[in-house]
Formats: sequence, structure tokens, C-alpha cells
Amino acid sequence: MSASTYIHGVAMTPFGRHIGVQAPELAQQAIFGALEDAQADLSDIDAIYCSNVFGGMILGQVIVRDLGLKGIPVYNVENACASGATAVHLARHALMAGQYRRVLVFGIEQLTQLGGGTIPLQLNDDKTALYARSGMVLPAVYAMRGTRFIHEGRGTTADLAAIAVKNRFNGTLNPYAQQRSEVTAEQVLASRMVADPLTLLQCCPSQVDGAAALVLGTSPAAHHGKPVQILASIVQSGMAEEARDDILDAEITARAARLAYEAAGVSPADVGVVELHDAFTIAELLYYEALGLAAEGEGAALLGSGATKLGGRVPVNPSGGLLAKGHPLGATGVAQMVEVVWQLQGRAGGRQSGSPKIGLTQCTGGGIAGVDHAASSVHLLGI
Amino acid sequence: MSASTYIHGVAMTPFGRHIGVQAPELAQQAIFGALEDAQADLSDIDAIYCSNVFGGMILGQVIVRDLGLKGIPVYNVENACASGATAVHLARHALMAGQYRRVLVFGIEQLTQLGGGTIPLQLNDDKTALYARSGMVLPAVYAMRGTRFIHEGRGTTADLAAIAVKNRFNGTLNPYAQQRSEVTAEQVLASRMVADPLTLLQCCPSQVDGAAALVLGTSPAAHHGKPVQILASIVQSGMAEEARDDILDAEITARAARLAYEAAGVSPADVGVVELHDAFTIAELLYYEALGLAAEGEGAALLGSGATKLGGRVPVNPSGGLLAKGHPLGATGVAQMVEVVWQLQGRAGGRQSGSPKIGLTQCTGGGIAGVDHAASSVHLLGI
Repeated sequence: MSASTYIHGVAMTPFGRHIGVQAPELAQQAIFGALEDAQADLSDIDAIYCSNVFGGMILGQVIVRDLGLKGIPVYNVENACASGATAVHLARHALMAGQYRRVLVFGIEQLTQLGGGTIPLQLNDDKTALYARSGMVLPAVYAMRGTRFIHEGRGTTADLAAIAVKNRFNGTLNPYAQQRSEVTAEQVLASRMVADPLTLLQCCPSQVDGAAALVLGTSPAAHHGKPVQILASIVQSGMAEEARDDILDAEITARAARLAYEAAGVSPADVGVVELHDAFTIAELLYYEALGLAAEGEGAALLGSGATKLGGRVPVNPSGGLLAKGHPLGATGVAQMVEVVWQLQGRAGGRQSGSPKIGLTQCTGGGIAGVDHAASSVHLLGI
Repeated sequence: MSASTYIHGVAMTPFGRHIGVQAPELAQQAIFGALEDAQADLSDIDAIYCSNVFGGMILGQVIVRDLGLKGIPVYNVENACASGATAVHLARHALMAGQYRRVLVFGIEQLTQLGGGTIPLQLNDDKTALYARSGMVLPAVYAMRGTRFIHEGRGTTADLAAIAVKNRFNGTLNPYAQQRSEVTAEQVLASRMVADPLTLLQCCPSQVDGAAALVLGTSPAAHHGKPVQILASIVQSGMAEEARDDILDAEITARAARLAYEAAGVSPADVGVVELHDAFTIAELLYYEALGLAAEGEGAALLGSGATKLGGRVPVNPSGGLLAKGHPLGATGVAQMVEVVWQLQGRAGGRQSGSPKIGLTQCTGGGIAGVDHAASSVHLLGI
């Protein structure tokens, strides 16, 4: 049988505007933090996986250049917003194949270097460019989902606002979050309209830099209490939701989640903490259902029950999620796992929520501007 | 034990100026070619690895968007000029881990879209930018190696020219090569000086587009005669040669080769065909030694013996190499394996050289503009 995969150590930088800080310096904060957390040295690391979208050629090698590492493999992985989860997924393959005993995975993104507005689109072909010129950028895509969601009576603008209120409250308890101000539903709904029905406070900040890192290994790590194991690691691609007949059908995520539950031999009811891809408020409501946390059409009811708040049955985005923490693309998927590890090991400080035994991370990539073949990744971590 | 990895099918587009052809169309030529060569359908493919440097976010998903694939994982891999070999390497990990039975790896690059001159540098940090502003672009780096090589008496300008003559002759026999004109040593030396001692005909063309694809699987494929197995797949990083005390010490490549021979249980003398990274003529001479094909200081003598010509003991770059074929970064490492598979299976047409049983591919990435932590990959394929 293939080797199991354990998370030996985790760390992240605060997400925020790290103006003037260069990629190696930012990444090394997370890298050395994760190594220290794993009680490991660089010399214990057999290979490095770098997750990044916009940082340029062989960014991983540039970053480890000054670390004094001697010649181990460095792999650069990109899968849009799902890059970090994909890097973990590929690292796990190598561990399972017996190629390495311990590897480092880090994600980094410096979006403040790219200027303001919607994240620059890299238009690979005419079809993609056509969608972009038509205005089909991500806020618009998610706004259509929100409009349809409300039209079908599956929720209200108040439900959307409640997601922002919940996650931004969680962010006030997270020193790593970019936005740490509590907001009310009234403030959320009164903030500037970005794409109806999504107001500014319902959109994740994209003017943000950050890095996160994990040390993964094939043996259980004995520190920090019980070792955290990766129970399932799934990456799937497919037609993005906006290209489907039903724009509310988060099919790729639902498929990835089903495969993850099967691989781990657990059910959604076993999950005690979730970090999911709340790039916009509507996304979290849709993913409640796609991940099986709520039955179809019951996402808003799950939210209303309080189950997904801190202290609830299954807290979702205790870190504050993308909405409060910010979304530095390459770092996001790794940082989700950092938070879930902290929650599983009781190390989440003021936002620790119960004693979960199984945590789930989910992120999506693509679905932008007509790139209707997008990615979704679901990981299950257990203690 | 981990599963073995076999190459079921291979294909590539002609390398050249594919002006107005978009990435999906170009890539699909190679993808469908490899599938046909493997006698496989898209539905037989469990996952896709896309190798690319400059094509933008989730290029793999963009390319497979129109293929009708339903949801399988797509991974985008980047390691500069070593991207293609790295994608194969990561795909092999997944096959060895038992995650997939059959996967598709393709590489693509469209450098004509980027304008002329040296390939655009993406400057991740000040250190990299400093080197670039100092003129330490790749032709300059290789020129310094060439100058030192001659200064140490290890070879002459005639030896450098002879590499270009050999590889460009091979290219005349390869319908997939961009440059298919035979040249004389006099023409090589009389061509425009790019960076002394490297003249234009000693530099690989970078105004080139192309794609190449492989189908890999865990079972031997019965068609095309004997199945080709990946005997060893090594990726290493390290300090690029120009940052070392001895700029002629291709240490990363030597280390990768040593590990590859160990993993495969073979010696350099067993290798019957080689595709290596002759981005500039001097590189091939240095890699003769780094790969163990010649003893230290004996690279030029190996060349002079004729052993590396078509029909020689160990033909090197029978395809024409980067010098004749062109160097579309993400596609190069995959295309090297396409040629070696053709040679091993006796399918190389007019440039078939004997009946080799073991072939080697080598490519390097990085070492550009101060990115002194670069990559090198060595694969051994056997029949």
C-alpha cells in the first residue's frame, strides 16, 4: 500500500499589503515558520513544491536560492486559485510513491504588485478574451449566481450579508487576516455595489500579499499533540458553473467532495471544521450544498441555524475565509490547510472552535472569463 | 513496489512559426497525435499534465476545454526550460503511487507571441533584475562558458562550430525541425556574432512555437514493437553554473545524471542515443562530460571522434536538438522524449541511427539572469 501523508508543521505570513517586500523574503517567513513548527531543518527536506500564479518563471527556485539548499528538486505548480491545494496534491503523490520522506510545500502571491481592480486576466485565446471583453469577470459571474439564487427563493440578500458578517467576525480573531473589522449586515448591504447583488464587503480583497507553508511527511509527527493526516486529496477539473445550464450547480466541487469522502471513508456529518473558497458570499452558500454539509436548497437554512459559526456544529471559515483573510491566489489553498491544522490541534487561539477531529478544505480555480474548464480541490485532514 | 511507467504513445507538432494558431489548436495536434499513437481515446486518460512557461493562468484547462473531457484532474507545471521533463516526472510520481493508470503529458509554448529578442525575463526580485540589467542574459552566460572553455584549452571555436554543423545537419532530416538547412563550419563561424564566441548559428532559435505530447501508463504497450519504459526520472535544482566558482562545472546536470544511472542500474556506456539541451553549442560539449559520455576534459575529443554523429556509437541530438529544432520552452523536454522513443522503436525515419536500447534526455531550466538556483532533469528510457 502507498504511504500515508502527515502534516508535520504549518505556518503563514499575515495576509495584507506587504509593500516593498520581495518574494524570497515573504516566502521565507512562511517556510522557516513551517520548518520550526515541524521541528525540522532544511536539510530534512527532500523536495519543494511552490504554488504561485503571477510571480514569473521558476519562482520556487528564486525563492529557495538564498536558503542554502543543496540541489533538491523544486517544482512550480499553477492551477489558478486552486494552485496551493494542487501543489499539496502533487507532493502527496510523490510521498505515496516513496520518492520522498519529507517535503515542503509553500504558496505565495503578491497581488499588490499587479495594480488595482480585478486580477489581471491572462488571455490565452480568443474565446477567453471574448468572455473578458463581455464583462464576464469573476464578480459578474458570481453576481449572476447570487441573482439566480435569490430568484429561485433559495436565499435572500440578508443571507448573503450574513456570510460576510460571520466570516468577517471570524477575521477579527485572526491576526493573519487582512481585514479585521467587525461589520453588521446593514454595513455589508450598504457598502458600494460591485455587481448586483454583491456589495463590496461581500467580495474578497484582492489587493493582498501573503505566503503559507506546510511540511509534509510519510511518518506521523509526534509534536503538537496528535499528528494530522491527509485522509483524502482530490483535484478535479470540469466545466465551470457559469458555463453549465444550471449556474448554481457547483458540479466540480460536488464531484471532488464525493470522491474525497469516498477516499477517506467518512461522511459530511463527520466533518468538524471547514475552510472553503468564499471568494464571494454566494459561493459559501452554494458550497454548503456541494460539500454535502446541507441538503440541496438548504444552504441558507444551515447558515441560519448557526451551525457554521464559531462554536457551531461545523464552523466554516473560522479563519475569516477569503472574505476577511484576503485571497493571495497561490497562498490561499495552503493557508486553508494551515488553519485546519491549527483547529484540529487546538492551536487556533481566540478562534479555536471545539475539538474537531476531521477538517475539510476546498478551493476552486478558473471559471474566469470563459475558461469554463476549471479546477476544484477538496482535502480531508484528520487527527 | 511502485508501478513501472511506460510510454504508450508520442507526438509533436512541427516546431516553427505557427502565427495565428491559438494554444488549444496547436496543443491538440500533439495531444490527438499522441493518443492515436497510443491507440487510446481521451476516455482512457485519467489525468493531464500541462507544461508551459509563458501561456498564462490554467493554460492546461483552457486547452482541454474543447476536448470534451469530463472532469479529470489537470495540472499546470512550470520549471523554465525544464518544464516538460518536470511534468513527465510529476506524472510518473502519480502513476507510481497508483493514483492513475494512464495519463497525458503535453508541453506547449508560443514564443512568437512574445516578440523578438531574448526571451522576456520575468523579474521576480531585485537580485534577478540586477543581473538582467547587467546583461547577464542567457547568451552572455553561455558565451562566458565558451570563452573559458577555449581559454582552458578544452576545445576551440572549431569544436563549437562542429556542434552546430552536426545538429543542424540532423535537423535537415527532421520534418519537425524549424531550421532544416545544412551549414558548414565556415558559415557557422561567419554568422553574426551574438556573444563572443557564440555566433548566431550557435544559438537555438527562440522565435518558435510548438507542442509535444506523451501518453504514459503503468502497463507495457504492445504496439510499435517493444514498449518503452521510463527507467529513471530525475529532477534536481541547485546553483546554476555561472554562479559557481567554476563556470564550466555543470554540477546540477552531473548530479542528476549520476542519480539517473544509479536508479536505472546502467552506466553511460549503455546509452545508445541522447537528446540534450544544446541551447548554445558550448552547452553540448559541457554536457558530454557532465552526462559521463566523455571523461572530464574529453568532450571535444568525443565530438571529434564522430561518436555523437548519426550512425556513431552514441548519437547526440539526432533530432537536430534545440539548435535546429528550435526551443519552445514548455514543449522542449517533452519533444526530446518523443525523439528518443522514435529512435528506440526504430521509427525515426531518415535520421534513425542504429538500434539503441537505452536513450537519455536532459534539459536544464533557469540559470538565467541571476536566478542561480536552476533545474536540471535527466530521464533514461529503455526498450
